Amino acid sequence: MTVDPVLHGDVRIFGGLYFDIKRKVPHYLSDYTDAFSLQCLASFLFLYCACMSPVITFGGLLGEATEGRISAIESLFGASMTGIAYSLFAGQPLTILGSTGPVLVFEKILFKFCKEYDLSYLSLRSCIGLWTAFLCIVLVATDASSLVCYITRFTEEAFASLICIIFIYEALEKLIHLGETYPFNMNNKLETLTQYSCVCTEPTNPSNNTLEYWDSQNITVSDVTWGSLDVHACIEKHGEFLGNACGPHGPYVPDVLFWCVVLFFSTVIMSAFLKDFKTSRYFPTKVRSIISDFAVFITILTMVLVDYGLGIPSPKLQVPNEFKPTRDDRGWLINPLGRNPWWTALVSVIPALLCTILIFMDQQITAVIINRKEHKLKKGCGYHLDLLIVGIMLGVCSIMGLPWFVAATVLSISHVNSLKLESECSAPGEQPKFLGIREQRFTGLMIFVLMGSSVFMTSVLKFIPMPVLYGVFLYMGASSLRGIQFFDRLKLFGMPAKHQPDFIYLRHVPLRKVHLFTIIQLSCLVLLWVIKTSRAAIVFPMMVLALVFIRKLMDCFFTKRELSWLDDLMPESKKKKLDDAEREEEQSMLAMEDEGIIHLPLEGNYKEDPAMVNISDEMDKTSVWKTLTMNTENTKNKDVSSKRF
Amino acid sequence: MTVDPVLHGDVRIFGGLYFDIKRKVPHYLSDYTDAFSLQCLASFLFLYCACMSPVITFGGLLGEATEGRISAIESLFGASMTGIAYSLFAGQPLTILGSTGPVLVFEKILFKFCKEYDLSYLSLRSCIGLWTAFLCIVLVATDASSLVCYITRFTEEAFASLICIIFIYEALEKLIHLGETYPFNMNNKLETLTQYSCVCTEPTNPSNNTLEYWDSQNITVSDVTWGSLDVHACIEKHGEFLGNACGPHGPYVPDVLFWCVVLFFSTVIMSAFLKDFKTSRYFPTKVRSIISDFAVFITILTMVLVDYGLGIPSPKLQVPNEFKPTRDDRGWLINPLGRNPWWTALVSVIPALLCTILIFMDQQITAVIINRKEHKLKKGCGYHLDLLIVGIMLGVCSIMGLPWFVAATVLSISHVNSLKLESECSAPGEQPKFLGIREQRFTGLMIFVLMGSSVFMTSVLKFIPMPVLYGVFLYMGASSLRGIQFFDRLKLFGMPAKHQPDFIYLRHVPLRKVHLFTIIQLSCLVLLWVIKTSRAAIVFPMMVLALVFIRKLMDCFFTKRELSWLDDLMPESKKKKLDDAEREEEQSMLAMEDEGIIHLPLEGNYKEDPAMVNISDEMDKTSVWKTLTMNTENTKNKDVSSKRF
Repeated sequence: MTVDPVLHGDVRIFGGLYFDIKRKVPHYLSDYTDAFSLQCLASFLFLYCACMSPVITFGGLLGEATEGRISAIESLFGASMTGIAYSLFAGQPLTILGSTGPVLVFEKILFKFCKEYDLSYLSLRSCIGLWTAFLCIVLVATDASSLVCYITRFTEEAFASLICIIFIYEALEKLIHLGETYPFNMNNKLETLTQYSCVCTEPTNPSNNTLEYWDSQNITVSDVTWGSLDVHACIEKHGEFLGNACGPHGPYVPDVLFWCVVLFFSTVIMSAFLKDFKTSRYFPTKVRSIISDFAVFITILTMVLVDYGLGIPSPKLQVPNEFKPTRDDRGWLINPLGRNPWWTALVSVIPALLCTILIFMDQQITAVIINRKEHKLKKGCGYHLDLLIVGIMLGVCSIMGLPWFVAATVLSISHVNSLKLESECSAPGEQPKFLGIREQRFTGLMIFVLMGSSVFMTSVLKFIPMPVLYGVFLYMGASSLRGIQFFDRLKLFGMPAKHQPDFIYLRHVPLRKVHLFTIIQLSCLVLLWVIKTSRAAIVFPMMVLALVFIRKLMDCFFTKRELSWLDDLMPESKKKKLDDAEREEEQSMLAMEDEGIIHLPLEGNYKEDPAMVNISDEMDKTSVWKTLTMNTENTKNKDVSSKRF
Repeated sequence: MTVDPVLHGDVRIFGGLYFDIKRKVPHYLSDYTDAFSLQCLASFLFLYCACMSPVITFGGLLGEATEGRISAIESLFGASMTGIAYSLFAGQPLTILGSTGPVLVFEKILFKFCKEYDLSYLSLRSCIGLWTAFLCIVLVATDASSLVCYITRFTEEAFASLICIIFIYEALEKLIHLGETYPFNMNNKLETLTQYSCVCTEPTNPSNNTLEYWDSQNITVSDVTWGSLDVHACIEKHGEFLGNACGPHGPYVPDVLFWCVVLFFSTVIMSAFLKDFKTSRYFPTKVRSIISDFAVFITILTMVLVDYGLGIPSPKLQVPNEFKPTRDDRGWLINPLGRNPWWTALVSVIPALLCTILIFMDQQITAVIINRKEHKLKKGCGYHLDLLIVGIMLGVCSIMGLPWFVAATVLSISHVNSLKLESECSAPGEQPKFLGIREQRFTGLMIFVLMGSSVFMTSVLKFIPMPVLYGVFLYMGASSLRGIQFFDRLKLFGMPAKHQPDFIYLRHVPLRKVHLFTIIQLSCLVLLWVIKTSRAAIVFPMMVLALVFIRKLMDCFFTKRELSWLDDLMPESKKKKLDDAEREEEQSMLAMEDEGIIHLPLEGNYKEDPAMVNISDEMDKTSVWKTLTMNTENTKNKDVSSKRF
């Protein structure tokens, strides 16, 4: 049943999809019944708050970039619709869809191109979207998702690191950006605060630009009561700000910036502290785990209350409070041709190809990370089904003129982390035993249902200060970095050998080789970052694809055994335990030997490398081995089934 | 040589002092040569910064309380002089002298009394000071310092906790107090910032008080250009503030408060982080230990630079920049009688008695904490010599009209902690082994020499923001709490039994009894706090003395063995090691027994309580036992000698 058709010659159109559906259907009811837990409430409240900000921010950015053609309300509507469909029908509902940086870059480039050649952006975009949707469905039909087996830990971690770093970078960038929005006086003298003011005045030497503007708006300068204008009106009327309380573009804003800094760091520290509360010594386990589960939600609530109490006008979350397209010249349905020439519908297949690679890589890498063996998922995966839903919704969004959504790495990891099942009686110090993930569709569904109804919750949401959400971003980015082996290896560079932790790969691979591996991965990461931020951002998806080939090339520099230790999906702890068990056995044998009780003729190299027994040198890591492992597993446990196909 | 004369019948005037001097003289040269280390540089730079602020703050407070009769410059001069003398000649130069809360309270009450009965405060104060100095010398002569053996861990920890909590409380209080000095607008509207102002105006309805003031100062109201006055002048001329940027007592101050909050918490977090850097995994041990040693200094330096860079007018350290008494009507020498009647010189012996108890308890409890066995001091103590120097300098300060200085608990603990010698090759995770303290007179000397010359460093010191120093306070208070067993026991209340750490006393004393002990100690602490803050603050020294008697009373509620576990100066780790060793021995015996190799007839209660073997039930903890232990030790190691006499 779960044997992969492609690799076993049984090529049938939509074969993978058929197996995905067959695998998921038996769990469908339990996907809802398994959600009866306080943890799920905590999870979707946290992720709702966490998802709102990027959806609205990305929407806002897209609005700026496309002159309001696609903006916050479209983003909110699209995310909600796609998210609900995905949560209901996808193969892996633990994945959270969201706007991703690369997609935004793609849209920006497209809009610029349309403006240059005087094409209708929304129409061209919907053509490309429809082609992409079609190509995605072709990928599903041909079972192309089975190729995810070539996405090894190397690729996953490079990509995930990139996304985490982008999250952290953006959180900090947004905080710094607040410094421009809310300038503060760096040369204030407290004694002269009685003379401190910044009033609007008539410009002394109005520029031609200003004069023209006045003309066009029929503004009679002498009639304007400049002194009584507020900041916005003064800027609008091209007035000048005069006084010692004036910054370069308007009055200095008191208190707001530093209050934002306080809010931001308090959020990060409080979230991390409450999350770690699980392993503290105080209070009974139940209380601790509730506090830990609700950590981010409690933090946001506290910060909102404190912020409200102090009354500083910090920037708040802006939710559109009416359900209609941002611009009046567009509806909820877009004509794929519109005023564009007919051949654009055909030519758009070329950017659609790039877009498809982007969507495919972005979606599947995240799915691979979520479906990792260390998450101990019991209900199996569904790469083909995932892609199908993403593809279909992409088409729907294109027709309706909404942004595209794919799996968002950091949000998905945060989602999975918030649903971790751990052994109850966790003594402090001792790490609680990880039992699995609460696999269900309910949290995902609720996140996006709430998101959709956010338009009706404006009165509540407008109290959430933005710096708090930036703080949540930083926390999510930083905490998602934790599980990434690449960072553990990076840290090794700063550590004297004697202080290095007992990583399993350090036992079997020379440090020099470990460092080489890390440096290659780091170079890839830097390259990805440079491309992402450079003007060549459009080739970003190709570069992600290239990661797979770079990994393949590394077979030349590393032995297969080294790679099996460094780039492997077998969970660290399990391997170490196996290894330890073997060493112990060996030790006890040696001990017995010493005592002269029994004597076993030990082979030299057995003692030196116990891993040899487990992992054969001849084993091919990337595809055949995995299939083999999977098949072996399948015979053992039908329910666990193939994680990757 | 080190046998205590009082307890052994050998009562000789100044006998204790004689032994103290005899013990310290051989180390005198090494007290300077032992200081050749980068750690000492770090230590005195840190403590100089840490001491400056309380000396100046207490000076300022005293100045407020005494209408400028004793203020910052007198405090700086007195602290420097007393500190230098103490560092050069005291028995335990690791102790740092400073202004303490109780002394400040005493001075305040005295000033109020003098004002009420129209007496000269400085003269009466110098009489009391001279009597106190005399009484202190009497205490030295009668070897009263040997009574410190009655100060057990119970008293020490209650007192030290109180002082630490005062430190933390004051740091936070000062931060909150900044909120009054720098009010911020809680209802600001960013749009109307163009109308935002707070100007000085003529009062619309001047009060009689104001009218009288104008009369007395010959102010013609119509001549004053109210609008051009700055904040200070406006308040001076009894003007009114008008505008939406006005707080209750003047203009709102933009940015300063929140910047102070950021500075404060950054200082606390950065100090703690850098201090903990010693046990991190990165960098070689040498680099780590330098960073750790200079933690507070690096923090202060960073914060000063950042603060200077941003240019926010945060409150800075105010150092007097001229060396002369604050008021012109006093010189550097005070006549003990002055305009007071002759009998005041005699009557002042009564407040002097109270003051002596205060000085004695404050000085000796801190000295006991510093001389604790766990600090592994090698050069011995000198309680009599300490008290002699404190007494003499108290007399000198009284004559010169300077404040009084005694051992400051938190500063002294911070000093000792900054001079810790730890094993070099400290792997992370593994706690570095504590080897002892760098015992020398140089750091103390340098702190007070630098303090004395601070008058000439005003141009540098005026860049240090006060919130940074408050942050250092909080850090010192919190880090001094760490070693206090009382707090470990307090934490036990919130812990389920299974999560409790493996404290040695928990092995031997029922939890119920441990909690009872903690509650009694907590009640004492609360009582001390209440008395300190109430109007009965003057009896505070009596209450500290009462702690000793309360401890004695506890003999009725606890068995001696329980008390020996809970209230004991033997370091925790050593005892546990002993205990572990015993258990191990026992275990191995049992194991051997199991293997049938040997069979020992074990007594039932031996197995249950191995401590019985070590610590006899008949042993009297408080005095005789200690003397015994000490004498036993003395015979073993002449250099370590009696820590307590």
